[in-house]
Amino acid sequence: MQRWNRVAIVGVGLIGGSIGMALRQRGLAGQVVGIGRRPESLRVAKRVGAVDSTSTSLPRGVADAELVIVCTPVEHIVDQVRSVAQTCAENALITDAGSTKASIVGGLNGSLPRGVRFVGSHPLAGSEKSGPGLASATLFEGRTVVITPSPNSQRRDVQATARLWKSLGAKTVECTPEEHDAALAAASHLPHLVASALAAATPQKCLPLTATGWADTTRIAAGDPELWTQIFFDNQRHLLGALDAFEQVLKTLRTAIERKDRRTLTKLLQEAKHKRDAVGS
Amino acid sequence: MQRWNRVAIVGVGLIGGSIGMALRQRGLAGQVVGIGRRPESLRVAKRVGAVDSTSTSLPRGVADAELVIVCTPVEHIVDQVRSVAQTCAENALITDAGSTKASIVGGLNGSLPRGVRFVGSHPLAGSEKSGPGLASATLFEGRTVVITPSPNSQRRDVQATARLWKSLGAKTVECTPEEHDAALAAASHLPHLVASALAAATPQKCLPLTATGWADTTRIAAGDPELWTQIFFDNQRHLLGALDAFEQVLKTLRTAIERKDRRTLTKLLQEAKHKRDAVGS
Repeated sequence: MQRWNRVAIVGVGLIGGSIGMALRQRGLAGQVVGIGRRPESLRVAKRVGAVDSTSTSLPRGVADAELVIVCTPVEHIVDQVRSVAQTCAENALITDAGSTKASIVGGLNGSLPRGVRFVGSHPLAGSEKSGPGLASATLFEGRTVVITPSPNSQRRDVQATARLWKSLGAKTVECTPEEHDAALAAASHLPHLVASALAAATPQKCLPLTATGWADTTRIAAGDPELWTQIFFDNQRHLLGALDAFEQVLKTLRTAIERKDRRTLTKLLQEAKHKRDAVGS
Repeated sequence: MQRWNRVAIVGVGLIGGSIGMALRQRGLAGQVVGIGRRPESLRVAKRVGAVDSTSTSLPRGVADAELVIVCTPVEHIVDQVRSVAQTCAENALITDAGSTKASIVGGLNGSLPRGVRFVGSHPLAGSEKSGPGLASATLFEGRTVVITPSPNSQRRDVQATARLWKSLGAKTVECTPEEHDAALAAASHLPHLVASALAAATPQKCLPLTATGWADTTRIAAGDPELWTQIFFDNQRHLLGALDAFEQVLKTLRTAIERKDRRTLTKLLQEAKHKRDAVGS
């Protein structure tokens, strides 16, 4: 297992905080530095044991780090990786944890100084809740992390990035940034959009009669509206494609209900159950 | 707390089994009889302690019962309450646990022999899983049960029905069958439809990249397709109305994403979050 002398985490929310906590509890880092703009978040991150030290200065924070992980909202990642690349140690490995990949990896590809080792990644872990106060050293255990190299990525850097996530207990899969965004549109971004539409469409007076079904189906609608606005805009094209497919299925369901077409309705519900059962709890 | 000498439960799935188990564990019934068509389900119900005895004969099972609870799929409830009414003891209290109420309460209103004490109810508890093997004596604790009297219901029967559910640990609310069906269309039936559409619309190849968000949002799509077909058809009018409202919100979200209209998108996501936060976990 690789051990890092100094790791810098840019953005110590739930994901960044959990990475720091896992690195520290697993004894994988000599020192973890948390970098952020808000002193209060940095204080919480330190108090819960997510980081050893903190800095509000990106250049100072990443100095001498062998590994830098950028865990900020997707709209800021490209700029921040560029800033990191300008000031970090030569030969430092840089990755991110953004929920979209094409604009980030594409935006950085070819525009980083020669020799900078950046490989994009996306841990499929998280929660509708946010902030370093909820960081957990076990957040990535058993979860999947998608690694999305660019055509220019060095094989050894891709492998080092995969090893990092595996050392936190995750499994890794590798695909192109475009493949990632198309798949995540259906697997994550559309579910969030649909959950939000469902919660928003529920009349206030019906809320007291909701039970576990509504609660499960709308849980992720409690996520941060600003973060998800960024993700939806960033992955606009694939998300709209996934929405088209969803609306097509919904239309078939509507027609079956209107016509009391039992065969079509039951068959579609069976198909849905089949897919849901395949994934498990 | 009222104690019943003999309680008959028609249909010993998750709900019927849990009622029997709760009555027995709380010492509220001298004997609980489980009635069903499938000997295997009855055996399981007895083995897990949901019932004291079983019968595949409705007339024999309900004979001498002071309380009969019909927990079968919604399409069968009207016929079964009629059968129960023909053979149960005079003065027995009859209720049901169906997920729709207007067709059941309306279908029975005025058509039951004089003196039969039927009051409809719907416990807002359950799971995407089914069968007596998963019955739990605590299923109703802290949950809401909707009691839906007809214009002909006697006050004392409505109160006795509410007392029954409260004795199992539930809270009760009372409304008309129509009010129930309109509210549950938005609070339960539409979420199920949307969860099923989302699961069915997810491409098979994307399933390995789903995480907790997809899993939560689609969980109830694992429910029994036949039961939910019945519920969707039975509550067709209100469900289509709730679907209209949902599609309207979804259309607004789509347009905001297409136009990158940040203000509208974030505002709607905030409204969704606000409603979701109000309900809690």
